[in-house]
Formats: sequence, C-alpha cells, structure tokens
Amino acid sequence: MVEDSGLDIMSLNKYCNSSSSSSSSEHDKKIFSKLKLNLSEDFPQKNAEILSGQYGTNLLLVGIALMLGNATHNPLIKEEYLLSFLTSLMILQLIWMMWYILVQKRQKNAPTEKDAHATTGWIRGGLTLLALLTLIMDAFRVGYYVGEDACASPVLAVYPVIHATHTIAQVHFLWFHIKDVIKSFKTLDRFGVMHAVFTNFILWCHGVMSETEHFMNNRMRRLTALGFTNLTIVLDPEPICNCTTSTCNMFFNSLAYLYPFNIEYHIFVSAMLFVMWKNIGRTIVHSNQKRVATKNHCLTIGPVMGLLALASTIGVLVVYITHMESLQTRLSAISMFYIYGIVILALMCFAGAAGLLIYRVDHMPMDTSKNPSRQLDTELLFGSSVGSWLMAWCSIVAVLSTSNDPPYRWMNFTYSVLTVLEKYIQNVFIIESLYRQKEDGEREDPELTTSPEVFTVTSSLASPYNGIINQAYETPERPCVSLDNEQEDSKHACGSLSKPLEVSLPRENKVVEPLKVKKQVLKNIAIFLILCNMSLWILPAFGCRPQYDNGLEQELYGFSVWTTVLNFVIPLNLFYRMHSVASLFEVFRQV
Amino acid sequence: MVEDSGLDIMSLNKYCNSSSSSSSSEHDKKIFSKLKLNLSEDFPQKNAEILSGQYGTNLLLVGIALMLGNATHNPLIKEEYLLSFLTSLMILQLIWMMWYILVQKRQKNAPTEKDAHATTGWIRGGLTLLALLTLIMDAFRVGYYVGEDACASPVLAVYPVIHATHTIAQVHFLWFHIKDVIKSFKTLDRFGVMHAVFTNFILWCHGVMSETEHFMNNRMRRLTALGFTNLTIVLDPEPICNCTTSTCNMFFNSLAYLYPFNIEYHIFVSAMLFVMWKNIGRTIVHSNQKRVATKNHCLTIGPVMGLLALASTIGVLVVYITHMESLQTRLSAISMFYIYGIVILALMCFAGAAGLLIYRVDHMPMDTSKNPSRQLDTELLFGSSVGSWLMAWCSIVAVLSTSNDPPYRWMNFTYSVLTVLEKYIQNVFIIESLYRQKEDGEREDPELTTSPEVFTVTSSLASPYNGIINQAYETPERPCVSLDNEQEDSKHACGSLSKPLEVSLPRENKVVEPLKVKKQVLKNIAIFLILCNMSLWILPAFGCRPQYDNGLEQELYGFSVWTTVLNFVIPLNLFYRMHSVASLFEVFRQV
Repeated sequence: MVEDSGLDIMSLNKYCNSSSSSSSSEHDKKIFSKLKLNLSEDFPQKNAEILSGQYGTNLLLVGIALMLGNATHNPLIKEEYLLSFLTSLMILQLIWMMWYILVQKRQKNAPTEKDAHATTGWIRGGLTLLALLTLIMDAFRVGYYVGEDACASPVLAVYPVIHATHTIAQVHFLWFHIKDVIKSFKTLDRFGVMHAVFTNFILWCHGVMSETEHFMNNRMRRLTALGFTNLTIVLDPEPICNCTTSTCNMFFNSLAYLYPFNIEYHIFVSAMLFVMWKNIGRTIVHSNQKRVATKNHCLTIGPVMGLLALASTIGVLVVYITHMESLQTRLSAISMFYIYGIVILALMCFAGAAGLLIYRVDHMPMDTSKNPSRQLDTELLFGSSVGSWLMAWCSIVAVLSTSNDPPYRWMNFTYSVLTVLEKYIQNVFIIESLYRQKEDGEREDPELTTSPEVFTVTSSLASPYNGIINQAYETPERPCVSLDNEQEDSKHACGSLSKPLEVSLPRENKVVEPLKVKKQVLKNIAIFLILCNMSLWILPAFGCRPQYDNGLEQELYGFSVWTTVLNFVIPLNLFYRMHSVASLFEVFRQV
Repeated sequence: MVEDSGLDIMSLNKYCNSSSSSSSSEHDKKIFSKLKLNLSEDFPQKNAEILSGQYGTNLLLVGIALMLGNATHNPLIKEEYLLSFLTSLMILQLIWMMWYILVQKRQKNAPTEKDAHATTGWIRGGLTLLALLTLIMDAFRVGYYVGEDACASPVLAVYPVIHATHTIAQVHFLWFHIKDVIKSFKTLDRFGVMHAVFTNFILWCHGVMSETEHFMNNRMRRLTALGFTNLTIVLDPEPICNCTTSTCNMFFNSLAYLYPFNIEYHIFVSAMLFVMWKNIGRTIVHSNQKRVATKNHCLTIGPVMGLLALASTIGVLVVYITHMESLQTRLSAISMFYIYGIVILALMCFAGAAGLLIYRVDHMPMDTSKNPSRQLDTELLFGSSVGSWLMAWCSIVAVLSTSNDPPYRWMNFTYSVLTVLEKYIQNVFIIESLYRQKEDGEREDPELTTSPEVFTVTSSLASPYNGIINQAYETPERPCVSLDNEQEDSKHACGSLSKPLEVSLPRENKVVEPLKVKKQVLKNIAIFLILCNMSLWILPAFGCRPQYDNGLEQELYGFSVWTTVLNFVIPLNLFYRMHSVASLFEVFRQV
C-alpha cells in the first residue's frame, strides 16, 4: 500500500516536471505570439479612442499655432505655410475617404449597420446647400487669384481647387456613409474619422479667423474715415497685391458675404463626423419607436410672429450698417439695435417659458437610452452658450462700473440680462424636448387612431360590458340581428353601441383635445424660436456687432482685451444660433 | 324596435354628457394639481442637471468678467469688488454646507449611500496638507493687512478671515460627506454642490491670476534691472500701500511661495465636488472587487531614478533662478533647462512605453462599469494636456520659422517634441491602467491563494480527474479509506493527491512568476513617473519658466500674444502635472 502510493507520487512528479518544462517553453512562445497578436489586432477600444482623440487634438493645435503666427502678420510665417498645411490635411482626408468607400464597396454583401439618429435628411439637405455656397466661394477665390497672378503664390490657387474637391467628396460621404457604424478596421478608421473631424474643425477656425480679420479691417477703415485716429492698431492692407482687373476686386469683396455659410458648413460637418467617430464599434440597440408624421393645423401665430421678427431683423441690419457710416447717426443706430434685441429676446424668453410650463403639466419620463448624437447636441448647445454669456456678463460689469452715461447704457444692461436669461431658458427647453420620451403611436395622431379603434372588430366584439347592456333588455340580440340583415357596417355600429363606446369615446376626446392643443402650442413655439434664432444669427453674421461700437466695455477692458474676447465669443455665438435652429427643428418634428 | 333603439341612444347620450362634463372639471383640477406637484417635486433629473450646470457656468463667467476688469488695472473696477464677490460666494457655500450637515445629522437613522470610488484616504490627506498651507497663507494676508492698515480697504481683511473659515469647514466636509450619494432634496442639493464646485473653481482662477501677476511683476523688475527697456508694458507696482512695518513686506513676499499650494488645493476640491455632483441621484452598483494589498518587493530602480530626477530638479531650479539675474549667464541657464528637460522627458517616454508594452503582452478586458470619478480623471488629464501641447506646437513652429539661431534653438525643438510625445504616451498609459479590469483575488497575491485553493474541500472532492487516477489502480478506494480512519484532514490531503494538484500547482507558479515581475516593473514605472511629474510641477510652480525668457516664440508671436498664451497655458500644465501625480498614485496602488 505504501509502495503503491510512493510509486504514485514519483510518477506524478515526473509527469509534473515534464509538463512544467514543456509548459514554460510553450508559455514563452505564447507570450510572444500574444504580444504580436495584441499589437496588431486585439487593441483595446478605449486606447484607440484616446490615441485618435489625442492625434486630432494635436492636429488642431498645430493649426492654431500656425494661425496665431499668421494673425500677427509676422513675415516669418507666410499665409502660404498655413494654406499648405490645410491643403495637405484635406488631401489626406480625401485619400482616407476614397479608401473607406472602396473597402465598403468591396464588402457589399455584408451590409454595414446604420445609426438612425446620426443625421436627418433635412440636415443633409441644408449642408448640401451650404456646400454649394462654399463651392461658389472657392470659384471666387480662383477668380481672385487669376486677377492678381502677378505676385501671388501658386498655393493661393491650389488651395481653393483642393477645397472644392474636398467639399464635393465630403458631401457625397455625408449622403451615403455618415450613418455607418464601423465595426471592422476600427483603429484605422478611428484615426481616419478623427482626422476628418479635425480637418473640418481647423477649416472652421481658419474661416473664423479670415472673417474676423476682414471685419476688423472694414471697421478700422470706417473708423479712420470718421476721424477716430486714436486707434493705433495697424492691420495688414487687403488685398495684398494690386488687382490687375476690376473683377478681381469684386471677387475679393464678394467673398466676405459667403464666409458665414462656409463657416457653418465646416462646423456642422465636424459635429456630424464626431458622432460617426463616437459610433465606431458601438452596438446599436434598435428601438421600435417610429416617428409618426403629424399634421400641422393651427400653425399661424408662431410663423407669423417669427416672420415679423425676421423681416424687422433685415430692416435693422440695413439701417444699422448704413447709420454706422456717419457720426450723427451712430448712437441712434446702437440704441435701435438694443431696443430691437430687448423685444426679440423678451418674446423668446416668454415662448421658452411657456413651452417649459406645458411640459410641467404633462409629466413624461425621460428617455435615457444611449444616443451619441443627442448627447453631443446637448453638450454643444451648452458649450457654445458660454461664449455669449461671457460677453453678456462683461457688458453687465462694464455698465455697472462705467462713469459714462450714453443713452443706451441701461438698454445694454437689459439686453445683456435678457441674453443670459434667454439662452438659459432656451437650452433647458430644447434639452428637455429632446430627452422626453416620445408618446405612443396611438396618441401621436388622435383623429386617425381613436376612431378606428372604437369601431374595430375586436373592441366591439370583445367588450366586457356587453353583459350589462344585455341585462337591460329581455331580448338583447334583437336590434343587432335585425340590423345585421340590412348591412355589414351597421353590425359593428350596433356592436359599438355598447357601454365601452360611450365611456371610451368621450374620454379619449377629452384627453386628446388638450393634448392636441398643447402640441400645437409647442409647434408654434418651436417655429417662432427657429425664426428668432435665425434672425439673431443674421445680424452678427453680416456685420451688425454693436459690442465693438458702443464703447462701454472697451472703456473698462481696454481695446485689445475686449477685441480678443469678442473675436473669440462672436463665432461661438454664431454657432450657437445655427445649432439651436437645427435642434429646434428637431423639436418641431418630434412634438 | 325603433323606439327602443331611440330610447337607448338618448339615454346613452345623456350619460355621455354628464360623464363628460364631470370628467372635464375633474380633468382641469387634475391638471392644476399635477402642475403644482410637478413644479415642486417631480422635476426631471436631466433638467435639474442643466439648470444647476448653467447656474454654475454663469457664476464662473461673472467671476471672469470681474477678473478681466481687474487685470487691466482700470480704476473703474477695484480689487475690493472682486474680493467682495468671492467672499459672498464663500459665505453662501458655508451656509449651504451647514444646512446640508444639519439635515444629514437629523436623518441619522437613514444612512446615506456612499460612492467608494469618489475619493481615497491619501487624496484627502494630501488635501488637508494643502489646506494647512492655505491657512498659513490666509494668516500672512491678515498680517499684511495689519501692516498697511493706513490705506487698505477692510475687505482685504475680511476676505482672508472668511477664506480661512471656508477652508476649515470644507476640509471637514471633504472628510465626512464627499462620498455621499444624495438621494433626497436632489434639485436643491444640485445647486448647492454646483455652487461649491464653481466657488472653488473661481478661487482657483483668482489664485492663478494673482500668481501670474506676481510672476510678471517680478520678471519686469528683473528685466528692467538688466536694462531691457524696450518692454513698455506698465504693471501696477506692488504692494499698493507703503508698508508701515518691515514684517508687512516680508508677509507680502512670502505669500508668493504659498500660491502654488493654494491653487492646487482649490482645483482638486473643485474636481472632487464635481464627482459628488455627478453622483447625485445615482444608483450605485456595488461591485465585490476588493483591493488586495500587494507587497512591494523590488521597489528600487523606480524610486531611485525618481529621487535622482527630483534632486536634479531642485538643483536646476536654484541654478536657473540665480543665473537669470545676470546677462552673461542667462543663455547658459536656458540651455541647461532644456538639456535637463530632454533627459527627463525621454526617460519618461521610455518608462510609459515600457508600461504599455507590458499591457500589450497580457491582454485584459477593459472595465466599462460606470464610475464618474474615473471618467472625470480621464477627461481632466486629456483636457489639461491641451495647454502644454499648444505651447509645444507654438515653440516648434517658432523654432522652424525663426531667423535667429541661439544655442538652444534645436534643444527647444527637441524638448517641445518630447513634451508632446511624453504627454501622449503618459495619458494612454494612465487611462489604460485605470480602465483595465482588476485581476481576480486569486491572482492578486499568488502565494496566499493558490495553496489554499488546491486544498479546499470543493476542489479536491469535485475534481473531474478523479476518475482517471482511479483507472490506474484496481482498488481506488483503498488509500483513502485507510487514511480516513486515521484523521479528518488527511482525507482532504488524500483527495488532493489526485491529478489536479500536480497539474495546477506548478502551472500556477509558472504563470505567477512573470505576472509578479510585470507587476513589479509596473510599480517601478509608476513611482518613477510620479516623481518625474512632481519635478516638472516644481519647476514652473516656483518660477522656472524659460518659455518667457528664450525669446524665440516672442519674436514670432509678439510679446502680448505669447504672454497671453503662456498665462493661459502654464496654469493648465501645472494642474496636469499635479493631477497626473494623483492618477499615477492610483495606478501604483492598483497594479
């Protein structure tokens, strides 16, 4: 027995030794093969996210460093360097997009998953429109180059050509691939999408910079004409070369009107590509919430008021720009702007508050499902409001501390307070609208669904109250049987003359009526806010920026600080307005 | 029959009318009561989040507007206004904290849930230390006020007293309530916590502003002493009043050395409170992952190299500051800094890359459970690296485009490239470390767990290999039965003398050995990186900022742009270094 066990242990030990030595060499091999495998394929998703995110951020920072150097008009950094950088970024993006599309075409038998929330048809349509205006802008740029070919660098011609190609290819990409949920080649595609996101973002920054420079030049020229000579900031004269043709100058001046569209185009594409990046490797949970098209009755007050606002905006814009040319009318133009702004903002505050009150009346649970597109919308709304809030608070501090007392002092104060309040309310309204759970299909369109429901076969036949009615008459089958002889439809009518009809039909109508009214009010509010936000986009986009002209803030902060703040803040505010138009349109379609 | 049905319809109609009218009045009542209810209690969480978030952001912007006005030394905005604003914010936070603690004490029988991830003991300990230094700073401020009481406003005395009270109360709050997961009074508490977050954030901004101002003043004084008279920026002389005592001046100068600690204190508290805010209304999923204390053998290379780095840092700091005082040694001091930086950063890159390679060898799934604290850590790391990346890219552009050729030109280039690379690698390393799933308890401390496991009752009795062994002997029950007669424990020993013991024990050891080595390497890397990050925090925190002095970037961007960039970027970089020390310490404890 003892020998047996001794033998047992020995043989086992032998077994162990051999297995351990073989396992150690195997283990070493395994480690190396694992390392190889992990480095090539099995890369954690979190790492790929961070690596590509950091790559994009650094790309942006290189761009910013170049732009900063360029903005100081130092001869060390020529504009050509910046444009070459931008051109090479765009070429890289073009190559990536081509590669992506080719790979997708090859894998045609395996259809890619799509994120339904990623974008909507009307956003893509709007972007196509903006892209068209961008193409016109590129054509103008080429025309301008042809005009001054004597001295300009060829980079100035290559840039718009590549930019136009990039725009066309990108719009194609937006239409057919932006909703893709990428599952294979994750790490490589992450870098590709991130590159695209930041290429567009840098192009946005470049657009903003050019636009600001143009605006500042115009302003300087105007101020010099008015005799304000204490402004000693020297800005580079534009255009740099003497235009050899008169059309060349025309091209240059027309460019300015197209800047705002080009700017919005790039920032919107950037946001959409970012959602695509967020979707990489995601598993989409398909919800069966279908959007039911609702009829838009009673859409009068909102559009009418909104269009009034839009019309008055254009009036204000024209008056403001013409009045700023002369010393006598400057002050009245600024006052006019503030009065206009106070009225519009107050109305928007009321509209937003009314919408929120309606939401408080019918409580609805929040939709907490994952939706990167919606989350980004929320964050962008919030983030971009910071810009104009900062401007407003600076104005408030300046008004309170100033020793001057121009006629618009307290108007500026009221306007600034309302700016803060309006964005506060509007953000809450939009975000709550986007996060509210959609109501059921039945409630979505009450006229269509309640009546057929009452007259359906199931509801009439399976009614639990049939028995009660029957108790009231000794011969309950009689009316139905006789009606049955006459025609098919009246049978259902007969069946529906039981208690459920009387109880359910009026109740449904009563519930539906205020619901319908509420929906209509919300739709009117949304459309009014859309038009107001458009108005408030148009004004600064086309040069009506009284914050530069009123002098109150400049007195406190000094010219350079205040100009820097505004040059940073106004592009953010423009983006906020455009973005809230898009979000409000989504709200309009959902309520 | 017809009459019957007529009667039927009439009575039904009557019924309908009465029921509908009564339901309509009820419905109206319901709506109003609902409105009341919804406004008071049933407020959607998403809304409360946005409302309080927007409140906090606006608070910050008011602070920034005041600081901007104050920074321009315009007589319109006195420092007293800013300090009064800060004081009132702190008083409000004190009231809220008192209220919160009182309510918590009342509800003592209902214990609040805690978020175990929210903070660790050593972070709270570190913060207490920083708070102590902050208290000393407040004492110095009071001393300074007493010295110049002839002309200073009493606000200058009230502010440090309130600040000291605020610091003490906040440290108490940090120790006993920061982990709370608030479930009741959500909306009110959201505002309270948000107020606290942004109060600390504004105090951080104020600290950064004061520190930068102090640094700039010192620099101007030094440059003027060296004869650089082409710098025409006029900075306010400090101290404002003539000190009546010599101690007053001493207090004023000592303050500067305490600024860095005060700054770090506020930003860390702000981040911790933000996690508390994120936790409001959350349902914590308790995971049973226990942290097992690991033994730290072989911790030599990391600490030794790190301490060497730290020692050389202090040497470099002293040499740099003394050498900057004279024209002859300026250039050599700058070169010395860059050489030092290149060596340290290259070593850090290697260390981080080695850590990542180790991770690639043993693949581990990522832990994707919700953890606001970790997510915030990640975002802060990423966000604060943007600062020094921007600085690095600006330097790279400046070096490439400059016409000057100082001895440190290409050193600056290498240093900047390494700065980008080092943060890139370090961020990936830290984030991957924080997101890797913890290994099982069994593997955590192999010596302790493998041996008991083999001898457990379940593993020995339920072993699937028992049958194989039994086939080798004709009388399999024999040894066990005989042992069974002798004692209880040997039965298990007998059972464990089956195949699983011999196979599992050596294999476990083989796997464990490289695992242990890997762990030790990772720990060494973490500790080395901690000490290096500390070194790179010390240098700029105590005035070694060659970016201001080397002149290359200033040539390209101009004095005001480059100074603005640096004043924005350096505080971010300081925060990055401190924050990565905290994160790396977490990594050190987890591997």
